[in-house]
Amino acid sequence: MAQDHRGVFVPALTPFHRDLSVDAERFVEHCRWLLAEGANGLAVFGTTSEANSLSIVERMTLLERLIERGIPPEVLMPGTGCCALPDTVTLTRHAVERDCFGVLMLPPFYYKGVSDDGLYANIAEVVQRVADARLRIYLYHIPPMAGVGFSLPLIERLLKDYPRVVVGIKDSSGDWKNTQALLEAFPGFEVFPGSETHLLDALRKGGAGCISATANVNVAAIGRVIRDWNKPEADALQQAISDVRAAIQKFPMVSASKAILAQLREVPEWDLVRPPLRSLDADSKSRLFESLGALQFDLERRLATV
Amino acid sequence: MAQDHRGVFVPALTPFHRDLSVDAERFVEHCRWLLAEGANGLAVFGTTSEANSLSIVERMTLLERLIERGIPPEVLMPGTGCCALPDTVTLTRHAVERDCFGVLMLPPFYYKGVSDDGLYANIAEVVQRVADARLRIYLYHIPPMAGVGFSLPLIERLLKDYPRVVVGIKDSSGDWKNTQALLEAFPGFEVFPGSETHLLDALRKGGAGCISATANVNVAAIGRVIRDWNKPEADALQQAISDVRAAIQKFPMVSASKAILAQLREVPEWDLVRPPLRSLDADSKSRLFESLGALQFDLERRLATV
Repeated sequence: MAQDHRGVFVPALTPFHRDLSVDAERFVEHCRWLLAEGANGLAVFGTTSEANSLSIVERMTLLERLIERGIPPEVLMPGTGCCALPDTVTLTRHAVERDCFGVLMLPPFYYKGVSDDGLYANIAEVVQRVADARLRIYLYHIPPMAGVGFSLPLIERLLKDYPRVVVGIKDSSGDWKNTQALLEAFPGFEVFPGSETHLLDALRKGGAGCISATANVNVAAIGRVIRDWNKPEADALQQAISDVRAAIQKFPMVSASKAILAQLREVPEWDLVRPPLRSLDADSKSRLFESLGALQFDLERRLATV
Repeated sequence: MAQDHRGVFVPALTPFHRDLSVDAERFVEHCRWLLAEGANGLAVFGTTSEANSLSIVERMTLLERLIERGIPPEVLMPGTGCCALPDTVTLTRHAVERDCFGVLMLPPFYYKGVSDDGLYANIAEVVQRVADARLRIYLYHIPPMAGVGFSLPLIERLLKDYPRVVVGIKDSSGDWKNTQALLEAFPGFEVFPGSETHLLDALRKGGAGCISATANVNVAAIGRVIRDWNKPEADALQQAISDVRAAIQKFPMVSASKAILAQLREVPEWDLVRPPLRSLDADSKSRLFESLGALQFDLERRLATV
């Protein structure tokens, strides 16, 4: 089922100016580079994109800029799930009207301990209000951040009632057993692990690819695992991307990924994050670059591709 | 220090129409009734208000409506803390420009495990961007919902750098030891427990009053504890409000409070919540009203006051 792999989708980092306003031009450049490096799609406005630190208007403006500047909407899967139903509807409708491939939908994440019934009602309201046959929803399951997630019974109910709308999931539970359970329970449902650590395992069980923070700096190597998943070298390729991931995830992922781009592109502004996130301190950066150096991480050469 | 008590502030419930749009007129009526019943302030757009299920524009429109319809801004403490810094700045500036008494500020609550340094930077950015001497911030500490909170060292740092801006806290930790620690560590800082359960204990240690969900249906009795805190009957009054609280908090608080208003005001629309919250089912409602009946809860008579 290699032909079914969607590939590697990148939750593109959002660059800022010194005053913490969004640097839209640098964002366009970054997205272009990711596609040139082999990204199959861009899951813009994910956790790694600091989407929840952006206003609704900033997100819509930025999406429009990407499309105006030639990023094809067919590769775009913007995050649109917000705490407030009207915001989720606004962002989802906006993405659909601009012909984005799909949307990545966080559950409403403020209230904790909510019922599956309440989460179902939320998604159902979004589908009914957007009321557009082009809508394709990828559920965004990330309980460590959201504190709320999509259980298997909830997904089953959504697939039964909205089979052509709810088409996949990003599983950022960090729990391989959950990914496995999803792959086994829902054949044909597009399951993207939220990390490349179990990418090969997922591909062998029919996974769709992955959507991973570290793809911002290692997309070519991750893409190669997906392309060559059934070749003899697949395990070695997997090991290499797992090692890079392990080195980066010793640090807060957003800040670490931005630190890498700041250093290698020689653009200090890449290092900027919006609070409550913080840039890595100098010591953490040294340790990060040391670990990556030991892995002969070849990003510097790759950055020259754009 | 009785004269220092701020009193009881109500996180006013937000009523909806059948299509889940906000019923602004019913909201104005509810706020008027709460003030007539003795509320000292209205912490509109709190957790109980389903504020995080409202868009930024809905919140600003609703605040303006309240003021237009004669609710004095001096009693208003709207919630303005959002995940995204620009949203927090927009709402905070809006509230300050309309002369609200203060704002109740959730920390940015999407990213978990963030540092005190990152939370400090977030609040500091808001203060600097709003740049208005009228700004008074009440920190909103509710880790069970937000997953992120204000530690004592963080509060100490904020008080040191912004002594005239950061003036109080709503402590909805549900942990009396934390409330006690706040009262002891920061004399003069206005500490509002997020529940009336430990109200008298807090008042005796210099607490400012309370900001409680159940004040939507029991504000007069809670207010009396604050007024009569040093009279002999204070403990009995406290017991009575604690009993009502205990009966209601066996159920999800927002839905239970709305169910009470729907029933007693004979306005079925009061029962509506936005998903992911759900209205109480019939069985839960019966049990709720039975418990309240056993307590001779006198809301029906009080509702006649407006």
